[in-house]
Amino acid sequence: MKIEDRMAAKSINLNPIQRGGILTDDARRVLQEYGDGYAFCDYCLKGRMYLIDTPPLRTFHQIIAEWLEMDDVRFTLGNRHAQRIIFKVLSKRGKYVIIDANAHYTTYIAAELAGLRVKEVPHTGYPDFKTIEDMYEEKIKEVKRESGEMPIAVFATHVDSYYGNLIDAKRIAKISHDNDIPFILNCAYTMGIMPISRKSTDADFLLGSGHKSMASTAPIGVLATTSEWANKVFRESKIEGDWSGRAFPTKDLESVGCELVGTQLLTMMASFPTVKERVKKFDYEIENARYFVRKIERIGEDAMALGETPRKHTLIHFDIPDFYWATEKKRGRGFYVYKFLKKRNIFGVQPGKSKDIKVNTYGLKKSEIDYVIKVFYELAEELNIPIM
Amino acid sequence: MKIEDRMAAKSINLNPIQRGGILTDDARRVLQEYGDGYAFCDYCLKGRMYLIDTPPLRTFHQIIAEWLEMDDVRFTLGNRHAQRIIFKVLSKRGKYVIIDANAHYTTYIAAELAGLRVKEVPHTGYPDFKTIEDMYEEKIKEVKRESGEMPIAVFATHVDSYYGNLIDAKRIAKISHDNDIPFILNCAYTMGIMPISRKSTDADFLLGSGHKSMASTAPIGVLATTSEWANKVFRESKIEGDWSGRAFPTKDLESVGCELVGTQLLTMMASFPTVKERVKKFDYEIENARYFVRKIERIGEDAMALGETPRKHTLIHFDIPDFYWATEKKRGRGFYVYKFLKKRNIFGVQPGKSKDIKVNTYGLKKSEIDYVIKVFYELAEELNIPIM
Repeated sequence: MKIEDRMAAKSINLNPIQRGGILTDDARRVLQEYGDGYAFCDYCLKGRMYLIDTPPLRTFHQIIAEWLEMDDVRFTLGNRHAQRIIFKVLSKRGKYVIIDANAHYTTYIAAELAGLRVKEVPHTGYPDFKTIEDMYEEKIKEVKRESGEMPIAVFATHVDSYYGNLIDAKRIAKISHDNDIPFILNCAYTMGIMPISRKSTDADFLLGSGHKSMASTAPIGVLATTSEWANKVFRESKIEGDWSGRAFPTKDLESVGCELVGTQLLTMMASFPTVKERVKKFDYEIENARYFVRKIERIGEDAMALGETPRKHTLIHFDIPDFYWATEKKRGRGFYVYKFLKKRNIFGVQPGKSKDIKVNTYGLKKSEIDYVIKVFYELAEELNIPIM
Repeated sequence: MKIEDRMAAKSINLNPIQRGGILTDDARRVLQEYGDGYAFCDYCLKGRMYLIDTPPLRTFHQIIAEWLEMDDVRFTLGNRHAQRIIFKVLSKRGKYVIIDANAHYTTYIAAELAGLRVKEVPHTGYPDFKTIEDMYEEKIKEVKRESGEMPIAVFATHVDSYYGNLIDAKRIAKISHDNDIPFILNCAYTMGIMPISRKSTDADFLLGSGHKSMASTAPIGVLATTSEWANKVFRESKIEGDWSGRAFPTKDLESVGCELVGTQLLTMMASFPTVKERVKKFDYEIENARYFVRKIERIGEDAMALGETPRKHTLIHFDIPDFYWATEKKRGRGFYVYKFLKKRNIFGVQPGKSKDIKVNTYGLKKSEIDYVIKVFYELAEELNIPIM
């Protein structure tokens, strides 16, 4: 896709991981200005990104912390590295972390990297796949019984990437805190999309993703926490050279000295006025998503949106078996759907997928949603699938 | 600095960490096309960045591996994360890593993160600060004597960031291999600047920095290795969900699943034809750097370039005591030099520095170097310092 096309919004991108990351025009301009290697380091006087005043990166850290009602924040090389850092720091406290079974794959791998075992909280299975929040209590007890120690943390995925289900964060927070365990909430699909704050979640750690949901260029993640945890997680280096005595007490330990995501952060800053406003209009986005679901579920006999009903997020995982059966006979098979949509300037459905179709309607205009529905109906017609 | 200025090259950037990272025009265009969040994931069919064929990221991995005469390569979130990953993987083999005392601060912190101790190889001190390569042998013996085990690796900084000294890699490689220890060479200031290869260095690991030296947007690092080490370092995830049985055997462990630096890599790809050619002209760059040193050393009585003589790199650390004494009486004191240069469109000398002035002449035209010399002489005149 050429820049002119993107700029003119001639094409529609439905990719669930991309809708919230599309840059604002301001962010695009900033990216050009600060694209060169280390350009954001021009006026770094203290050797750490979060202490740079020109451009005002330091102030922006405070702005995001306040926006989230948290005490301190750092920007990481993507949400996955925020997870890696927290798990690593907390891993001294024990061997298990409790996670929802809808957690992103990076949650499992971040735990693995920290030498932790995961204890999963089950979901309800097909077709809702709803995490059973009350089972967090049981799983804490299970860990205690099996290992003799408490889990290092309770982790929940605010909205998961597979079904777009919204978890009841406060309910899980209560269970965590009643057991004196810190609560980590992964808001990769919600921070920058819907209102998120400490008060609305009771989380000890709020994680976000700039390139997924805050109109920022990749890679950048958000790691926000409370004063209770900030000093433990945002530690400084203590190593000393045995011959030279060199030491780096002002450098950040877990980020290997400095986070390096200045260019990305500048795009986030440029987009933030837009992001701050757009989260307030989430109800409108939900209406659009539900409208889209109703229309797409009319394709053939069995089309349905997996996950909870009614939808509470714009990320939607459709199960459309008729597409699968009909395209199996077509040239390109699974790729038929991708190619059909691409010809009509709709992108983002995973190439090769014909049955499990994951999309995200976030930020689409009503007219664009109607256009996508029209094209999906045309595809159904082409495949001789009735609109019910 | 506005984009138009950068494009028109109206200003001169001397920042030692930025000269090699300035984007080519092609990279700048690619950055605009792929700036949106996860745009490089559009056609990801296998869930890992290094397996994407459209755009040809997979092929580019092979191209870089061949260019370096190594067997396999991954791109990381900056050189520091390449160091973090190698140290972590190797840390199972022991407690010590041997490093040169001119190593970048990230080397120390990456070691600290892996729970390692550093054993430093001394340098000659003021004014050359030359690493004494032969002492690697002694330090290996020292580790063995003190800890009863071999160091996990021998690490050297090819050109250091403080004095721009070039280390004798082959000499250190021989010591490492005679002792059956893997040899890691940090080429943050050389890969993409001068010719680097396995044959010319005998390294088991070659690390590079895209934003420092390969005309790429930040953050991106290079981790290249041999077939002997590739499987150990580029491991896949083994964790399994205890309830769901979910597993991610195709995901990369150390990068928490995927490296995420697709946008950065695309700028590196766009710049690579230029980078590949420019390394062949390093002799010309050295001539310019030596010319610049001769001219700047004429400022006042004591101006000198620290580090080895003659210079073997374009990164130069000047010690100009007369600038310090003269600006102490001026408004802005240390910042006087920065402001004087800025008004004349010269950037990159660290704000506040008047005595230790680090610059990099890499890629500057002869006419630009002459302009910088002229402005430095004007500054000397303004400060009543004679040109000797």
